[in-house]
Amino acid sequence: MTDLRAAALQALRAQTIEIPSWAFGNSGTRFKVFGAPGVARDPFEKIADAAQVHACTGAAPRVSLHIPWDRVEDYGKLAAHAADLGVAIGAINSNLFQDDEYRLGSLTHADTAIRDKAIAHHAECVEVMRATGSTDLKLWLPDGTNYAGQDDLRARQDRLADSLQQIYALLDPGHRLLIEYKIYEPYFYAMDIPDWGTSLVHCLALGDQAQVVLDTGHHAPSTNIEFIVMQLLRVGRLGAFDFNSRYYGDDDLIVGSADPFQLFRIMNEIVEADALRPDSGINFMLDQCHNIEPKIPGQIRSVTNVQEATAKALLVDREALHAAQQAGDVLGAHGALNDAFATDVRPLLAELRESAGLAPDPYRAYAASGYADRIAAERTGGTPASWGA
Amino acid sequence: MTDLRAAALQALRAQTIEIPSWAFGNSGTRFKVFGAPGVARDPFEKIADAAQVHACTGAAPRVSLHIPWDRVEDYGKLAAHAADLGVAIGAINSNLFQDDEYRLGSLTHADTAIRDKAIAHHAECVEVMRATGSTDLKLWLPDGTNYAGQDDLRARQDRLADSLQQIYALLDPGHRLLIEYKIYEPYFYAMDIPDWGTSLVHCLALGDQAQVVLDTGHHAPSTNIEFIVMQLLRVGRLGAFDFNSRYYGDDDLIVGSADPFQLFRIMNEIVEADALRPDSGINFMLDQCHNIEPKIPGQIRSVTNVQEATAKALLVDREALHAAQQAGDVLGAHGALNDAFATDVRPLLAELRESAGLAPDPYRAYAASGYADRIAAERTGGTPASWGA
Amino acid sequence: MTDLRAAALQALRAQTIEIPSWAFGNSGTRFKVFGAPGVARDPFEKIADAAQVHACTGAAPRVSLHIPWDRVEDYGKLAAHAADLGVAIGAINSNLFQDDEYRLGSLTHADTAIRDKAIAHHAECVEVMRATGSTDLKLWLPDGTNYAGQDDLRARQDRLADSLQQIYALLDPGHRLLIEYKIYEPYFYAMDIPDWGTSLVHCLALGDQAQVVLDTGHHAPSTNIEFIVMQLLRVGRLGAFDFNSRYYGDDDLIVGSADPFQLFRIMNEIVEADALRPDSGINFMLDQCHNIEPKIPGQIRSVTNVQEATAKALLVDREALHAAQQAGDVLGAHGALNDAFATDVRPLLAELRESAGLAPDPYRAYAASGYADRIAAERTGGTPASWGA
Amino acid sequence: MTDLRAAALQALRAQTIEIPSWAFGNSGTRFKVFGAPGVARDPFEKIADAAQVHACTGAAPRVSLHIPWDRVEDYGKLAAHAADLGVAIGAINSNLFQDDEYRLGSLTHADTAIRDKAIAHHAECVEVMRATGSTDLKLWLPDGTNYAGQDDLRARQDRLADSLQQIYALLDPGHRLLIEYKIYEPYFYAMDIPDWGTSLVHCLALGDQAQVVLDTGHHAPSTNIEFIVMQLLRVGRLGAFDFNSRYYGDDDLIVGSADPFQLFRIMNEIVEADALRPDSGINFMLDQCHNIEPKIPGQIRSVTNVQEATAKALLVDREALHAAQQAGDVLGAHGALNDAFATDVRPLLAELRESAGLAPDPYRAYAASGYADRIAAERTGGTPASWGA
Repeated sequence: MTDLRAAALQALRAQTIEIPSWAFGNSGTRFKVFGAPGVARDPFEKIADAAQVHACTGAAPRVSLHIPWDRVEDYGKLAAHAADLGVAIGAINSNLFQDDEYRLGSLTHADTAIRDKAIAHHAECVEVMRATGSTDLKLWLPDGTNYAGQDDLRARQDRLADSLQQIYALLDPGHRLLIEYKIYEPYFYAMDIPDWGTSLVHCLALGDQAQVVLDTGHHAPSTNIEFIVMQLLRVGRLGAFDFNSRYYGDDDLIVGSADPFQLFRIMNEIVEADALRPDSGINFMLDQCHNIEPKIPGQIRSVTNVQEATAKALLVDREALHAAQQAGDVLGAHGALNDAFATDVRPLLAELRESAGLAPDPYRAYAASGYADRIAAERTGGTPASWGA
Repeated sequence: MTDLRAAALQALRAQTIEIPSWAFGNSGTRFKVFGAPGVARDPFEKIADAAQVHACTGAAPRVSLHIPWDRVEDYGKLAAHAADLGVAIGAINSNLFQDDEYRLGSLTHADTAIRDKAIAHHAECVEVMRATGSTDLKLWLPDGTNYAGQDDLRARQDRLADSLQQIYALLDPGHRLLIEYKIYEPYFYAMDIPDWGTSLVHCLALGDQAQVVLDTGHHAPSTNIEFIVMQLLRVGRLGAFDFNSRYYGDDDLIVGSADPFQLFRIMNEIVEADALRPDSGINFMLDQCHNIEPKIPGQIRSVTNVQEATAKALLVDREALHAAQQAGDVLGAHGALNDAFATDVRPLLAELRESAGLAPDPYRAYAASGYADRIAAERTGGTPASWGA
Repeated sequence: MTDLRAAALQALRAQTIEIPSWAFGNSGTRFKVFGAPGVARDPFEKIADAAQVHACTGAAPRVSLHIPWDRVEDYGKLAAHAADLGVAIGAINSNLFQDDEYRLGSLTHADTAIRDKAIAHHAECVEVMRATGSTDLKLWLPDGTNYAGQDDLRARQDRLADSLQQIYALLDPGHRLLIEYKIYEPYFYAMDIPDWGTSLVHCLALGDQAQVVLDTGHHAPSTNIEFIVMQLLRVGRLGAFDFNSRYYGDDDLIVGSADPFQLFRIMNEIVEADALRPDSGINFMLDQCHNIEPKIPGQIRSVTNVQEATAKALLVDREALHAAQQAGDVLGAHGALNDAFATDVRPLLAELRESAGLAPDPYRAYAASGYADRIAAERTGGTPASWGA
Repeated sequence: MTDLRAAALQALRAQTIEIPSWAFGNSGTRFKVFGAPGVARDPFEKIADAAQVHACTGAAPRVSLHIPWDRVEDYGKLAAHAADLGVAIGAINSNLFQDDEYRLGSLTHADTAIRDKAIAHHAECVEVMRATGSTDLKLWLPDGTNYAGQDDLRARQDRLADSLQQIYALLDPGHRLLIEYKIYEPYFYAMDIPDWGTSLVHCLALGDQAQVVLDTGHHAPSTNIEFIVMQLLRVGRLGAFDFNSRYYGDDDLIVGSADPFQLFRIMNEIVEADALRPDSGINFMLDQCHNIEPKIPGQIRSVTNVQEATAKALLVDREALHAAQQAGDVLGAHGALNDAFATDVRPLLAELRESAGLAPDPYRAYAASGYADRIAAERTGGTPASWGA
């Protein structure tokens, strides 16, 4: 156990979680977006907020951008601003859902001109990657249909495959195209990339630089997500996570808040496959909203939730686990996993932080920092950032 | 069969479907609201559009209002406008989800002042009822929590019960309070009225003027909705429907578009309980969006879908059905139901319309009417109505 | 925290969990029932096995019986056998699903003779209650239909209400009728008691001795179960739990094995409502299978899982929780709950057991006891008990 | 429309549906298997019953066998018996779930000896194929785990891949290996082939003779099945259907009984891809139970339900549909599909049957045939066939 603990500390030290710029803007449901004081008004302020999360946790050194929400004149300046604050630019997310012309589709649209426009948007994103040093182009395809018969499902796939080929051709050698899937919303009959199988089919057609993104909130009820993690690892195509929590649909709650045992099981598959190490190429990202809770503390809680699940996964006594599995000892093997989950890892994580010169509890450290009051006082003019801008 | 057909025609002649004013404003998802040409800009234009649906179908003589979206200075004038166009004002819908103070709840809020404000809003709605002749106050409670522990579930119920008592006390003798339930959204851990059981518990506590509203999109996956219809009819508390369709969450698609057999089974329970007749007190309302399709044709299709399901339910040979049920003839009884569903009722409905001096196909009649082009040309200034205004 | 710990220990000392006799017989799926060595062959052996669970955990002093599976000639002798082994007879479960005549229903059957037979079966169960000192008659109604139209849903409810009245009339003053609901299986279109609302409607019609049983595996996906617990407590009709775990359908896995956070949230509602104390009248029962794992260890793990969830619920700092809730501090309140869940309560439970003269780890204590080998050696002839006998 | 009707008749004439021998044995739930008079007692009687379905419908000329349930001494004799009755032997189904040794897995078991046994079982199945002229080996893998940690998910995949390679090597050139997936049951934590993606990953690794089987009841709630059909057709790996209906889990009800619109949408994808023609290689099979309804009429209804859905799909005015799709006319395209679904195709199918010298209504024809009474009278001794034998 002592050895497990030491090894866990070492692995946790190397773990990084990427946080999304849009978590620091206002978000909500179709019914209402509630505002909050001090919300960032531009990409520079979003990055400043993200840097606070990293300053408190020591585990969140990258920020994903979303284009056009994070469009700036000088991306080099934005990257330098991030570096000054101790963070780097992570994945560049394209946006295919907020143009009036995309009402019936973007990369799948029947009209070539609209498809071309959507492809060109990715060329802009690749430029942002070059300017910021990002290596991941993340594509969540919001395309789909609302009514049976509305469009030809097969024709849409073929148009999608063609569009993806063109986007893939834009990549530099070290770049990756990360393709996310989602079962439903914003369309409600058939999404064009609804499941990991479809995402994989397209990645296989594209080549090695195409990988699947698994968003934990994008599955049908009762889907076993850790199985998909395992399978994508097995076929070498798990590129990244979008972490968040759900009870019902794509609830976008704080990761680990709804089912911490599920998050632990997911991280257990990662550890089991030795895919936690930084050079595994898996980008552990957050993608979630803070509709009613404060945003920076919400991100801090999210990061610590992932850390706690990871710590527990690292504390699994794998020798005992494998021995029980090999012996067909159902309850023994299950118990070996559960023993790790039952462990209170908060002291371990406090030690991790203190050994890095951080406060043991990032949530309290942030509360004590006065940052929230400061931004509430300072950010009084202008328009708070949101999904729409 | 001849008799069934004649009886069906008679019952269909008496059937009315209430349509929502908000179907004629723009709507969308949290990701994007797509605009459309000619969208109504105020309650008067919404009612004009609704009147078109009635003009084409002959079956939609009432329009639900939503306060504050349909706030006007002179409700008498609005009601007169409706009457001039051949329709009447239906249920008045309160809004508890678009005020910043309602972030953590409205009728359930821990702060009495906020609860009082939410109750007072219903007093305004009752005034609108008096001014427009409406008898139904519809309350969909969007309150809920996003995180376990966020609030005390029981305390919220007790505060809700108290708020409802105060609202109920506002009603005139002929008024009804219609209480709707919803499993999730806009909150994602626990809605405060998540299911029909909770709605019923509150109605029973309030009195006979309180009834349950069943929204067909507000249930967990695989819930048998017609069973709930039957049970609410049995205990005398089914007040109204909010019709729409879902494949996944609260998709708000055109009623009957996702699972026409389910809609038929629902209408079959209505017919079986002799609850279709107008004096049954059940208000058959639509509540749905038209995010990507044109709105007036979308409402027309919705009305005709309900009519088709009703017509099929009316064509069930109930003697044969009951005989097979009584005999334990599983496939015979199932077949008696299916025979009605397999029937093409479009000719019957065409006959119904023609006998009322209408065109046989309301969808084509509207397309041929030139109304769409007219409003697109006329409604050029101003701001299109939407959920937000 | 010291005080919380002491109070928790005291409450845990008083907590009892009832275990089902049928957990000690063979069970499986429709595809296969796997046998196991040493499985009990009759009710006496089942009770002996159950007594082992109590001997190891100190928390399982009652055994539910299932009639006719546990039919014996002399119930007084069976009760005495139980008493000799340190346990008592708990709820008596009726069986309405294994008679050929019940193919199309039992208490809801169209044929009065079959309904009478099903009612008479409950008279037998009440006799067993009298002979064994049991006070709970548990009725899970497996009735339902497989095809739309197969039978008249409303007529079935009315027949059910009548049958329940007759059963209720059989009860002695101190008896309770516990009515369980289930969304589906063994019928797949409409169960006759599919949800808590229907169960409650019938209980309200019957009287105060009728209460609802909540089986944790009997809900639609994504149902918030702790909300139902709260609501049934609020209306005074939560009679008992049937505990088990599910990922998909009615999986009947070890309680707490699939979603320990959910079990904690359920127990949190119990503690919040002060309904853990023995005189609350809530019977905490297990109802689950052990298809592939050994049965006695499976029951022991189930009992300790309930204890762990309860211990965590008892450790919630309710002052802090309520203060944060009152202040609208979303993350603070959520965090107060989570802090208790993150706590490793295994040492507390070890202390509880040792203070009662038991081994700290019941699972290991049983493994070390040699009982499994003993029964495997001794129980060689005869037929293992199962759901069918 | 005249042309559509003629083309539909021609396509329907060529359509064949394969029926399962096990539909003619007793089946049920884990709670109870209800018997019925006249149930077949051996494979010869099952085939005789299947031949009745074909005699009445003219559309069911093949019977799937299940080994060992349909084990006979002389398969040539069984095939000749079938031929005498006008039907042929279809797919051979292996059984990996009824051996005590398979409790923890078959093709995925940690023990090589057990895996070898399961592989050897397929060698027997291939022998049956050779003896009966069957070309399809259907493998539904029931393997899985019930508890997190019970076994190593990845190791199980690797063992499965190895086992499948060995089975694939057994095939003759004209043979196919059809690999079915299922989300849950008989295991409840993680099935080893839970989804189409996993099935496809293994098929791709094996080679062109491996194809996916889509069972309509084996998906998570709200999964869009026709999308999967489209995608598997697109990648050339849709080998077969197992048709049945579900409201909840794997309900195994009569295909088309729960959601006829879904079945129509599935058949629409088939027709759209021109995959209905016999040489497409897609085997349209039934796989369902008749727990409470009579079995031969249940199969007849199943066949006619598939025919009705197919007929409607064939009547879609594809020119109009594609034009509306191309024009982005959402409601027009949806309406083109719906118009076909609204059509009463029973007269068309009656014509189809009469043109083949059959009675227009197969269900009534069977009822009038006296066959049910005859087998009830004749099959009095022996043991009715069931899943277990």
